[in-house]
Parts: sequence; C-alpha cells; structure tokens
Amino acid sequence: MQKVPLPQTNNPRVVIIGGGFGGIELAKKLKKKAVQVVMIDRNNFHTFQPLLYQVATAGLEPDSIAYPLRKIFKRQSNFHFRMAEAQQIIPEENTLLTSIGKIRYDYLVIATGSTTNFFGLKEIEEQAMPMKSVTEALDLRSLLLQNFENALLAKSVEEREALMNVVVVGGGPTGVETAGALGELKENVLPQDYPELDVRQMQIHLIEAAGNLLNGMSEISGKKAVDFLKKFDVHVWLNTAVKHYDGQMVYTNTEHQIPTNTLIWSAGVKGAVVEGIDANVIGRGNRILVNEFNQVKGYSNIFAVGDVAAMLTEKAPKGHPMVAPVAIQQGQLLAKNIVCLLQNKPLKAFQYKDKGSMATVGRNRAVVEVGKFKTQGFFAWYMWMAVHLMSLVGFRNKLVTLVNWMWSYFNYDKGIRLIIRPFKRKKTEEKEVVMDEV
Amino acid sequence: MQKVPLPQTNNPRVVIIGGGFGGIELAKKLKKKAVQVVMIDRNNFHTFQPLLYQVATAGLEPDSIAYPLRKIFKRQSNFHFRMAEAQQIIPEENTLLTSIGKIRYDYLVIATGSTTNFFGLKEIEEQAMPMKSVTEALDLRSLLLQNFENALLAKSVEEREALMNVVVVGGGPTGVETAGALGELKENVLPQDYPELDVRQMQIHLIEAAGNLLNGMSEISGKKAVDFLKKFDVHVWLNTAVKHYDGQMVYTNTEHQIPTNTLIWSAGVKGAVVEGIDANVIGRGNRILVNEFNQVKGYSNIFAVGDVAAMLTEKAPKGHPMVAPVAIQQGQLLAKNIVCLLQNKPLKAFQYKDKGSMATVGRNRAVVEVGKFKTQGFFAWYMWMAVHLMSLVGFRNKLVTLVNWMWSYFNYDKGIRLIIRPFKRKKTEEKEVVMDEV
Repeated sequence: MQKVPLPQTNNPRVVIIGGGFGGIELAKKLKKKAVQVVMIDRNNFHTFQPLLYQVATAGLEPDSIAYPLRKIFKRQSNFHFRMAEAQQIIPEENTLLTSIGKIRYDYLVIATGSTTNFFGLKEIEEQAMPMKSVTEALDLRSLLLQNFENALLAKSVEEREALMNVVVVGGGPTGVETAGALGELKENVLPQDYPELDVRQMQIHLIEAAGNLLNGMSEISGKKAVDFLKKFDVHVWLNTAVKHYDGQMVYTNTEHQIPTNTLIWSAGVKGAVVEGIDANVIGRGNRILVNEFNQVKGYSNIFAVGDVAAMLTEKAPKGHPMVAPVAIQQGQLLAKNIVCLLQNKPLKAFQYKDKGSMATVGRNRAVVEVGKFKTQGFFAWYMWMAVHLMSLVGFRNKLVTLVNWMWSYFNYDKGIRLIIRPFKRKKTEEKEVVMDEV
Repeated sequence: MQKVPLPQTNNPRVVIIGGGFGGIELAKKLKKKAVQVVMIDRNNFHTFQPLLYQVATAGLEPDSIAYPLRKIFKRQSNFHFRMAEAQQIIPEENTLLTSIGKIRYDYLVIATGSTTNFFGLKEIEEQAMPMKSVTEALDLRSLLLQNFENALLAKSVEEREALMNVVVVGGGPTGVETAGALGELKENVLPQDYPELDVRQMQIHLIEAAGNLLNGMSEISGKKAVDFLKKFDVHVWLNTAVKHYDGQMVYTNTEHQIPTNTLIWSAGVKGAVVEGIDANVIGRGNRILVNEFNQVKGYSNIFAVGDVAAMLTEKAPKGHPMVAPVAIQQGQLLAKNIVCLLQNKPLKAFQYKDKGSMATVGRNRAVVEVGKFKTQGFFAWYMWMAVHLMSLVGFRNKLVTLVNWMWSYFNYDKGIRLIIRPFKRKKTEEKEVVMDEV
C-alpha cells in the first residue's frame, strides 16, 4: 500500500477521521496553528444528522442538510481533505490505512461517530430501514412512496395494510420526530396524493421498550410527546420490545403483531470504532474509553471525540450522551489541548456544558428542556426550529431549509416526495406482482 | 399478465404514457371532461429537462427541477397515476402491457419524449455520460467531483489531466449551457476547493460536428456563443466529429486527441418509441409519424405528442423541433381534439407557434431569439432566467431555484457539490490505485 500524497511540511500532522460535528470543530480551531490538519471521510460532505428524518419523510431535500467539507475549510490553508474510508490504525507505526493508501500521523483523532445498533438481531438488520446517513434517508423516502404506489395494486386488504403501515422502533428523539412527521404525511399529504386509497387504513406505530418516551429527558416531556403523537393518530406502544421481523410482520414481546412492509429502526446506536485499537479500551456501546483530555486509554497520541468516545466521569458514569453538543465541545477543547501538547503546557480537562434537549412532534408542537426550564407546545416548537436552523452549516442551507419549512407550514405540505432511485430490498426474493381483474 | 386495478367508469379511458411537458398539458386540459385519464410514467415525478445540466454541475438540487406528478393533479378527480414502465402496445386489443400489468385503453397517447442518441457508437454509449434524466445528471455530478478527488492521488501529469479535463460533445443548447457551467466551476469554485491542484491544467472542450454552435438558431447567436465560451476558457472545436472514446482518450476525425475521463454526450436525441407500433410509421430520428391531429399514421385511437412525434408539414418538412413548447402546444390541442372525437365534431389541425429559442453561457451572458428579435448578453441572460423560472412546475420549486440562483450569483458559487452516491462506471475493470510516496 502506497502513501497518500500530501503536501510536505515540518509541522506535526493531525489526522482526523470523520467530518461530523466533532471533527469539523476540531479542524476549525486548528486554523493558523502550527500543525498540518488532514481530514478523511467516506463522504465529501458533512451530514446534519438531526434533520435526516425530514429527508426521509419528504420535508427537506438532502442538499439542505449536507454541506461540502471542502467548502467549510476553503480559507484554511493548513487543512487537507481526502475522501477515503479508514480501514485500520497501526499505532506502532503511527500510520492509518485507508481505502486510498497509507497516511502517517503525529496525532490521530477518531471522530467517526456512531452507527445503527441492531443489538445482534441479524434478521432485523437485513429487513429494517436505518436512518443514519443521507443515502439511508433517501432509501426510506423512496420505500415509503413505493409502498403507496404498490398499495394501489394490492390484491388483499392485508397486503394493502402491510404496505401502508409504518412501524418506528425506538422512542428517543429520532423515533418520536419520525413518527410525528409520518403523522403529518398521513394527515395532510397522502389523502390528496392517493384519493383511490383509504388512508385511514394506514397505521403508524411507535414501539419503545421502556415505560416512557424520550428517556434522556424528564417524565413530563415524555408523556407530553405521547399526547402529541396521539393527536397525529400514532399508536404508541410502551414497555414493548420487537423480537422478530420477517419483512412482513413485526413480532413483539407481547401478543401484539403488526403487519408492515416498513420497519424504521431508531432503537439505538453504537460507536463506529476503527480497527487497530486495543480491544480492552472498547467499552459499553462499542465506545472507546478516553481520559478527561479525550486521549484514548493506553495511547499518547490517539484521541477520540463525540459519539465514539466514552469519557466516564462522576457526573456521567456511563459516558456523555451521544449528541452533537458533546462532540462540538470536545472537538473545540481538543484543538486547544493539542496546541498545549505541542507547547509542553498542561492540558485542560473536559467539562460538559449541557445545552438541554428537545424534540418536535409535527407542526406547532415540541418539547424542550434547558436545565430546569421545561416547555412544551408552540413556543417549544419555535425554539426547536430556531436552534436547528442556526445549527445548520452554511447560509444557503439555512435559507433553503427556511423556505421549505415556511412553504410546508403554510401549505400543510411536504413537497419532496420523489422516488429518484427506487429502493430495492436486499436478500429478499422478488415476489411476482399479481393483480386483480378490473 | 393481470389487469391493473383502476376505478370503474362508463367514460372512455385515455391512457397517457409519459409525464413530460406534453403528457402533463394533455392531462390538465382533460380535467372535468367526460373521460378517465390514466397516466403512467417510470418515475413518480415530472423532470424539467432544460435545467438538468445545472443539477449535473452542482448549481441546483434535483428536487428543484423534479415535481411529483400526483401533486400536479391532486385536484383532478378523473386523473389516475400509476408508476410503471410501458412495455408493449397491442393495438388489436386496445391494450398496453406495462411492468405492473395490462391496461386497456380507448385512446392511447404516446408522450414518451426522447432518449440520448449515440448514433450506433456502442463504445461511446458504454463510456460516455448522458444527461437526460435526474439520475444521469446526479451520476455526472458525482463523477466530476470524484475525478477531482482522484486527481489529488494521480501519479502522473497525464493521469491528472485526464481526470481534470472534461469534453462535451454536441454544440446545441444543452452542450453550450453545460460547457458554460463547467467554465464557471473552473473559474470560481474548483480553485478554492482544490488549492493543492493547479486548476489551470483543467481543460474544457466543446466538440461540434457542424460549422457553428446552436444550429437551430441564427448564425450570429452561434458565433456569440463561441465568444462567450472563450471568455470561460472553453475550447470550442467546430467541424469536428468524435470517432472513438475508450474511457481515457477522445479520438476525433482530425488529428487532435484529448485525454479525458469524462465525456459528456449531448450530441443528439431520438424518439423513445414504445414497442408494438408498426415499424413503417417510425421515421427519421426514431420518431413516430403522425398526421396534423397527432394521430399515429394507420391508427385511429393512438396518438403521439412532443419529441417522439414527427408531424411532417410544409413549414417543418423534417418535423417540429424537439423542444418543450411543441410538446406543450400539441398536448393542449390534443385534449381539445379528443373531446371533439367524443362529440363527433371535426378536429383542428396543429399549428406550431414558435416561441423563440435561447441558451445561456454562464453568468450575465445568453443568446435569445424570438422571431426576428435577437439579443445577446446581460438582457438575454435576464430573459433566460425569467422564462426558465416561470416554466418550472410548482411555486416551491420556483422559490428554491430563485434562492439558489441568487445565492450563486452574489457568491460566485455552486453550492451543491455533494457526492451522495458515488458513480461507478459500468463494464470497465477497476484499476488499482497506485500512489506516489511522499
């Protein structure tokens, strides 16, 4: 394997794996510092993951929530990007193997985020729809629309219902927001698009293993989310776990079975670890154990930030929540600490500033918690929109998103219902379409 | 093959194949008439083809130029859409075979438009990039960006140049507009995104077999287009025909050879004929010969409109130009004539009203001809934008396109440079990437 060509420099090289929230903040704060920053990512863009569910439910175009990484850093001369997949770290050689060749590093930062956790349920992994990347969100959008097209051709009520029903697994913010957006589709969009179908036959189910929704938040927020979802006719199943799914029927730990062609899996995530890290420092949820400086335990020049890192502290004995603000704050501090390392100055320990949490459930409704302040309803929804708009990278993306949101709000519409590349399910035999005589 | 389930009615059924300009206008004008309108299309959306090149060159998101067909007709109760591929017409049974089953018709309208014409050059068909659909435009966008990522890893100047060069074949409006947009990318975007590359090494070539560009327009417009393109550093090769292309090198009928990894083929289109029509009525350019009522010759209840139809008249001995206004006007008139047929009234002959033609070459520059009125430069460019914005289907699409155009104009930017699904060339063996030592 050859080395990847990179500009020669006498400055130490910081290699960052991943252009998510953590990686971007770290690279930005290293601007004009005496280091060479090399970022690799399998995509040439940053994905604003909190809004992926809106891409999946036809509310936003993917281009509004994805932002070219090169564009973010176009005025940063010590920054170099390579589109590549990280394959293996070789710590003893200070080298990272990638899909395009070897990259030597002085400091390595693992900012790879998280992937969908199917908790070992192979059958579900093959059949369910995850929603952690732009392509996955687009596949889900296509499938939802394809199912409605196919429902017109169904030859039995059972088949038609399975095509129209949607089951969302996992009552965290992603699951709640997805179920809410589906509720809006059912209420405002699908009846007009499919006058030949009785959209009341469509059932939206949200399944959660715990006794309440939004378990990272307070009880009242979770209960309010249940209320909001019920207004959109979403069936919420608490204390219910999914056991099997064969692509047709969802089997739970209760007697209840739900026929559906679409199982959206938002029940959990796990760290996206790169090979080559000592297995002993990989903890719960596949996250890499780091010290208070985000240094991977047992390594002096390898760091991990964000979702993939588990910094076990007194306040956070299981590690910090896997959310954007943690990644952003860790990335910012690590930039400072790398500069300190170079200057032989003492490092600063990480202290998480909790910015609160929020989730929206369709138009005019959201739940927000910031410290002891809690609010639900219209004002929370307004806050949710403002925070998400501000957090989007790039003014064009903010503007296009705002236009789309205003458009959808006043028109009760979700305009991007396009099947650009039809979704084809893997590992399922194509069934022959048999239709009724007319 | 089973029949496709469709609502029962005593009204005669008009089946329209294709949701392009012609099909949409026809279906719209049949609103509230005593017919059942059934449209089939392989996509669930209408594509605004004149702006596909802006999707390919990172200027617009695909969602701005695609519009859900069901949404256009959501208030038209006699309209029914089915997403399906037309496979074969069986005229003696008044039946259309499709990918989802048989559809019986009383009147059939072929509005399938056109596809890329490679003029039998198999090698070019395998290697070149066409640009007639949203997926093809997205593939081209991905390839252009992937090539620049790979150029960073090239181990020779030749290899790097082939990755950076782009050759556009065909000097009609699509070729001219594409070359202009590539010129803008080269001038304003790529140098900032790829500071490690010398973008001056990138060459953009436009190859045209005739002696001037824009041959549907006057000589002065064609010459002006050449001038405009030269300002963007585009090499224009007139009287030059492409003979071979092996994926690496373009061979022409002159001694000139151009190394490139990207050959964009906009050299011609041909009618997208559906099987089952008598071969004798398929004429030049694979277009179906129709009479002055758009009735396919030899059939009483089969019609063809738009690009796929060739109506040979005294004014247009080779048929009308394959452009949107012809399809729109034919679709509108055919709706009236179908109603006349039902009422046993005499039909009205088609008369094409030429709306003029136009092409833009990057910012502030375009050529426009409306009858004897000709203009070039800024005012023409302004007209070009106004006409294209007005022609886009749907207010949301107009708005998002306007936002993007204004954004790009003031920022000298093309913001959608995302590789969402990397392009993989078919039938070419993957070459192993070999890189220099650093």
